[in-house]
Amino acid sequence: MEKMKIVGLVGSLRKDSFNKALMAEAVENCPTEAEIEVVSIELPLFNQDQELDLPETVKNFKQKIKSADAILIATPEYNYSIPGVLKNAIDWASRPHGDNSLEGKPVAIMSASGGMLGGARAQYHLRQTFIFLDMHPLNRPEAIVTFAPEKIKDGIVQDAMTKEKILELVTALIAWTRRLNK
Amino acid sequence: MEKMKIVGLVGSLRKDSFNKALMAEAVENCPTEAEIEVVSIELPLFNQDQELDLPETVKNFKQKIKSADAILIATPEYNYSIPGVLKNAIDWASRPHGDNSLEGKPVAIMSASGGMLGGARAQYHLRQTFIFLDMHPLNRPEAIVTFAPEKIKDGIVQDAMTKEKILELVTALIAWTRRLNK
Amino acid sequence: MEKMKIVGLVGSLRKDSFNKALMAEAVENCPTEAEIEVVSIELPLFNQDQELDLPETVKNFKQKIKSADAILIATPEYNYSIPGVLKNAIDWASRPHGDNSLEGKPVAIMSASGGMLGGARAQYHLRQTFIFLDMHPLNRPEAIVTFAPEKIKDGIVQDAMTKEKILELVTALIAWTRRLNK
Amino acid sequence: MEKMKIVGLVGSLRKDSFNKALMAEAVENCPTEAEIEVVSIELPLFNQDQELDLPETVKNFKQKIKSADAILIATPEYNYSIPGVLKNAIDWASRPHGDNSLEGKPVAIMSASGGMLGGARAQYHLRQTFIFLDMHPLNRPEAIVTFAPEKIKDGIVQDAMTKEKILELVTALIAWTRRLNK
Repeated sequence: MEKMKIVGLVGSLRKDSFNKALMAEAVENCPTEAEIEVVSIELPLFNQDQELDLPETVKNFKQKIKSADAILIATPEYNYSIPGVLKNAIDWASRPHGDNSLEGKPVAIMSASGGMLGGARAQYHLRQTFIFLDMHPLNRPEAIVTFAPEKIKDGIVQDAMTKEKILELVTALIAWTRRLNK
Repeated sequence: MEKMKIVGLVGSLRKDSFNKALMAEAVENCPTEAEIEVVSIELPLFNQDQELDLPETVKNFKQKIKSADAILIATPEYNYSIPGVLKNAIDWASRPHGDNSLEGKPVAIMSASGGMLGGARAQYHLRQTFIFLDMHPLNRPEAIVTFAPEKIKDGIVQDAMTKEKILELVTALIAWTRRLNK
Repeated sequence: MEKMKIVGLVGSLRKDSFNKALMAEAVENCPTEAEIEVVSIELPLFNQDQELDLPETVKNFKQKIKSADAILIATPEYNYSIPGVLKNAIDWASRPHGDNSLEGKPVAIMSASGGMLGGARAQYHLRQTFIFLDMHPLNRPEAIVTFAPEKIKDGIVQDAMTKEKILELVTALIAWTRRLNK
Repeated sequence: MEKMKIVGLVGSLRKDSFNKALMAEAVENCPTEAEIEVVSIELPLFNQDQELDLPETVKNFKQKIKSADAILIATPEYNYSIPGVLKNAIDWASRPHGDNSLEGKPVAIMSASGGMLGGARAQYHLRQTFIFLDMHPLNRPEAIVTFAPEKIKDGIVQDAMTKEKILELVTALIAWTRRLNK
């Protein structure tokens, strides 16, 4: 059987991002029936005038997304919502009209932040975008990592419960994707 | 008495953007006690690693925001949320920690879209960011322009009711700003 | 093959409710492979102290919900959110802990209001509750009926496009339910 | 100077409610320049057909709300949103059209829950209702009490930091109310 292909998107460009660490953990401990390829969201600012003649980086980004069986997002919350840089990549992925690369994809979210809410507010805003994008988000588990500096050090997830939650999330995403494709 | 200074932000980079037209209308018919300066949101992608040595364009952007008495936003809705490009500018404005340029500012939103909900969903997500940013959004009127192509042509607002609503919004923002500063 | 069983919930107790009319239309024109039973949400106020000795009406309500293959909601929006009376019924349905009657159910929403946003804001708040309830909402179509008094008269949907949208919604809910149960 | 009058609403009917405890703490330690009167939300189910001939309990409820200078809400989160029972009271308070008892009131929210998000999701949904109600919510502090059973025992707030946060919230609400009424 072919491996399930999951594309991973990280919502922060920061070198020592907590969410990069979550994604690295997911990649490393991904069940063998699937593999996660992390795709960069460093794209130009979205401008609808360019959507019929897409920049090369955007074309490649959209191609990667299209080839995925499922999407995994690891993101911080900026100002109680989705980081602009991540939303910008989603905006490119969705355009032009009639060529939404994310259409129909199963998706799971994890988030980490230094604070007590762990990025949850960004997760709920993302879920609202999934309605329009016609994506199918996993309900459970919700992977919300609070007080990240206590659990992630030197770019590596140290905390056993966090590691377990990430594995649980990826495993559930794989099962959800299989269920939707039956 | 000094004129009230309102900074205008437009959430779309598209040349013939409906929301640019809304903002142009607001600028042109702004009551004489205030003036609106539109500031570009074309900034680099936010990267927290750069926040202690901000790019020059970001420094200028933050300076403009800080000098404003109030903020006026005209934005489309992308994928049922805030355009990434606008959120990216807000993310820069809010950082680094302790230097949130938007802190305490009164703010009003207008939105236009081709569809039946007129960008309303982006407005509610923006309002959630205002909590963290400690901004004071106007409650009323809500300026939601549905079916924009029928009301805006050649980059100019043609519809009388839309023009009136924009004037009502700007007038209410000025009054709200005065009330908060008393 | 057994008929698919859909439970219908109407979010308004008003006698001439627009949303009762939407539901009546759905019931009458439901594809023959399914049937919709409308269940009353007139329940006592939720009080957690009573959840281990549920009122009889609540027991019956929960039983009806449990026996459903899918849920269809028709609701107005009150104060930019879910009507309290509907949310109260959902709160009963979800309790006590470990006995969530809505668990895993596919669900679709339609909404009508006199105004220009057609109850959309209630729909998005409902969708957030579905995450915790582990329900599976339909993404498309979104059935949002604006300016209801022009389309619904004497408790009957008169408008052809609205009738079509309701049929489209119920048909999509049936297909989505089959897909999830395969 | 007359005492500022704050009406307190508790979103749970449970006898040993954590949120009743938060409110009791607020009442007891309210700065002397204000006083908090807790008003019951045990009202009939909202039915628009009755709004022109309001039940006596609803009339009294609305009268209490109207006489308040500010509103303080303590509420749990049910199913990732506002408890139905609290929303039902807000729906009554807002009606009939043209007689919104909450109009223009300053408001602050606190929430406690057994879980890790402390009712935050209910707070953001409440804030969306405040837009329509034309209420003025406090931005800061946000009083979100996570893992409530560790901090509240026998209906009394035991935790020093939680007590401090409640005092900070009430103090900020008083200042915000003064600022809006200047």
